Amino acid sequence: MSDSAPVVADLLIRYGPDMDRTLRTVIGYRDDPIHRMVRYHLGWIDEHGHTGDFSRGKGLRSTLCLLACEAIAGDHHPALPAAAALELLHSFTLAHDDVMDHDVLRHGRPTVWKLWGEAQAINTGDMLYAHAFSALTDFADPAVAARATRLLADTCVTIVEGQSADIQFEQRDDVTVDEYLAMVARKTAALIGTSLRLGALAAGAPPSFENGLADFGQFMGIAFQIRDDMLGTWGDPSVTGKPVGEDLRRKKKTLPVLALQRLADARGRSQMSEIFSAENPTDPQIEVVLDLMEKFQVRDDVRRLADTYTDRALQALANLPAQFSERPDLAALIDYFTARQV
Amino acid sequence: MSDSAPVVADLLIRYGPDMDRTLRTVIGYRDDPIHRMVRYHLGWIDEHGHTGDFSRGKGLRSTLCLLACEAIAGDHHPALPAAAALELLHSFTLAHDDVMDHDVLRHGRPTVWKLWGEAQAINTGDMLYAHAFSALTDFADPAVAARATRLLADTCVTIVEGQSADIQFEQRDDVTVDEYLAMVARKTAALIGTSLRLGALAAGAPPSFENGLADFGQFMGIAFQIRDDMLGTWGDPSVTGKPVGEDLRRKKKTLPVLALQRLADARGRSQMSEIFSAENPTDPQIEVVLDLMEKFQVRDDVRRLADTYTDRALQALANLPAQFSERPDLAALIDYFTARQV
Repeated sequence: MSDSAPVVADLLIRYGPDMDRTLRTVIGYRDDPIHRMVRYHLGWIDEHGHTGDFSRGKGLRSTLCLLACEAIAGDHHPALPAAAALELLHSFTLAHDDVMDHDVLRHGRPTVWKLWGEAQAINTGDMLYAHAFSALTDFADPAVAARATRLLADTCVTIVEGQSADIQFEQRDDVTVDEYLAMVARKTAALIGTSLRLGALAAGAPPSFENGLADFGQFMGIAFQIRDDMLGTWGDPSVTGKPVGEDLRRKKKTLPVLALQRLADARGRSQMSEIFSAENPTDPQIEVVLDLMEKFQVRDDVRRLADTYTDRALQALANLPAQFSERPDLAALIDYFTARQV
Repeated sequence: MSDSAPVVADLLIRYGPDMDRTLRTVIGYRDDPIHRMVRYHLGWIDEHGHTGDFSRGKGLRSTLCLLACEAIAGDHHPALPAAAALELLHSFTLAHDDVMDHDVLRHGRPTVWKLWGEAQAINTGDMLYAHAFSALTDFADPAVAARATRLLADTCVTIVEGQSADIQFEQRDDVTVDEYLAMVARKTAALIGTSLRLGALAAGAPPSFENGLADFGQFMGIAFQIRDDMLGTWGDPSVTGKPVGEDLRRKKKTLPVLALQRLADARGRSQMSEIFSAENPTDPQIEVVLDLMEKFQVRDDVRRLADTYTDRALQALANLPAQFSERPDLAALIDYFTARQV
């Protein structure tokens, strides 16, 4: 982890200014109220409209896209329209997810719905969705633009299927780990794979290139989501920006919860389902669940699964053509975004 | 009205089967839970998944698009990808609007959020949004697909700006009629204009054709929305599927309300703002507002404005090339969708 951080920081510095400029060109100089919410959500301004340096996402999807393009074409610039589309699309999903999950914080700041209400947060997401597809029309070659649009639209279908399954899981208490992984493959990993594929497409690579990249992105995305689930359960509040056990408090069916259901004895399972049937689990109840996870070695189990997917991602990378497999920055990205932190 | 109805019915019969087939091809044979919600929202199935003949929208946008294409190319088929995109996009906005407005009925049936919750209704809209852009990639010519994507994405930006302004108006009591018309131009009329432009684009018409069509659509869209506002205030419940004064009960800042604010004397204005400051206006309070509207001749005033925009639409139609201006079905469409009914 400590080795990969400088490599990733270097990538973000290398691509950051181009990405920033491209995103601002797509959004334009619009300054109506809804675009102020959009700018706030993107981390460009505070809630009063003042510019500042606010915590944003790390740009995993755009970085992968630009890196894939650079690996093939020796230049990341051709993929900028796709990279912008990916970040805008990801931002749209976050704005809507925050409404659906009633999350009050995003990157340490109040969420859009918390500040301006659910209706405007839905509008903020809908606006970013439009800008994402608009960004793709900046490809000079219309054949590339049309193929990219198809790929992104198909990926949106997949993402919404995953998000919808995630919401349904909240109502069920028999969700299996396999079902969960299939949901994550849709909700999170599909867009990671599409990020790499769009980079290859922008570089003019033949479609045959794209399948290997999609596999790689799929495994990396699943490992990334499992790490995110681990952080949501056991993460250091100073790192995650959320209280310990936040996902448990919200009774989310994350992988640690599903693993506990599988590993616990009958008494542990009944304790847990009693706590999860409470309207709002109390702090002592959260402690009981965390103790059960300790007792049944849930963290080791989830870690093993995360490691499995990280290994598969590395294996998929090794199977890619030399332009990819020999790039240390791609391996560093996997390490940085999927390595164990808890 | 009575003259235009058969012409419009004939158009819907003529285009209906092609539209239906195209929409079903775009959605595919997906049958996962979120697509069951999508199919329900589109009026294809009931809430238990059984097919049936449910009340749907009248397909104004797709009809205009196909008609514009037919007027230029002599054949509506080239515009089917755009027509499908328009209906899917319009459906997405309805799914999200229902959440934002807490509307419980749509075409006489419970809304998606009412049946499956707000989160899944947001997902239903997001899914239709994706399918709309996917539909455009079915254009055989990638240059047409790319231009159509740009046009639709730009229109989405405009629609969401309008929808966002509409939500903000709920918090203000100084909205002017001009502000309202500017909002409607974005929220409703822009997509009507885009419907005609996409039809022309699909027919291979030069872009110079599109501006006149956009004007025509703009005026028609505003007249259409004013008629909708009139129905929401004075419409026959057996026609609208909503109780009398439903928009008033929900304290929507529709045109009749804004006109009353402008036309009433000081006492009338203060009566009205007192009623609109109540959490939930009662039936007798709604009656008071309707009586005030009667007293200050609001209906005549709003009718005049609607007629003004209908006349402008007819004038814009007369200024279009003969392929359009001499088509009786276009004039019939204006009449059917904008004629006074209350």
